[in-house]
Amino acid sequence: METSALANLPRPPYYAVIFSSRRTAVDDGYQETARRMLELAARQPGYLGVEHARDAELGITVSYWRDEESIRNWRRDVEHIAAQDRGRSQWYEAYEVRVAKVERSYGFQS
Amino acid sequence: METSALANLPRPPYYAVIFSSRRTAVDDGYQETARRMLELAARQPGYLGVEHARDAELGITVSYWRDEESIRNWRRDVEHIAAQDRGRSQWYEAYEVRVAKVERSYGFQS
Repeated sequence: METSALANLPRPPYYAVIFSSRRTAVDDGYQETARRMLELAARQPGYLGVEHARDAELGITVSYWRDEESIRNWRRDVEHIAAQDRGRSQWYEAYEVRVAKVERSYGFQS
Repeated sequence: METSALANLPRPPYYAVIFSSRRTAVDDGYQETARRMLELAARQPGYLGVEHARDAELGITVSYWRDEESIRNWRRDVEHIAAQDRGRSQWYEAYEVRVAKVERSYGFQS
């Protein structure tokens, strides 16, 4: 699974979930769970792709979805809910989620 | 200027510009220009905030704006256009820009 490159997406409109987070110093199971969530998300109906970057200050994961229903379903996935709970109690100091409708896009490739 | 933390934003709706990029190995002036662009953007009418993360694979900068007009104006700023040109010729291997309307948001703070 390629999660480090630019997502190859259809033409807008579609949805983006921007997940910006500051991590705690706790790693206990984080990497494994993060990988598992990316795998699980990719199997959800309506999933279009994901982009992720993290440095010492902040992590940003943008997942792309066909519609709001797909986002709602993924948010309610039982394994995902358990991961969200652990995220709040162990792995994240703070996060913000913004759900947005992508209206246009353009790109560049050298 | 604080650019590494979570942006403190008003309640939706507002706009997000998701700029995802892969860098070349060329650094010639990049850091300086990137910093200057963040400074300039922050002075634009309608600017709400920015979040940024970069690792070895990908960089993601999400800037937040009051409306589409603010985004258009910033895109057409003369100094910004010059930076975009240098970006394509020197600093970026590839990028994607998605302009999206943030419809809802929620967060967590430990």
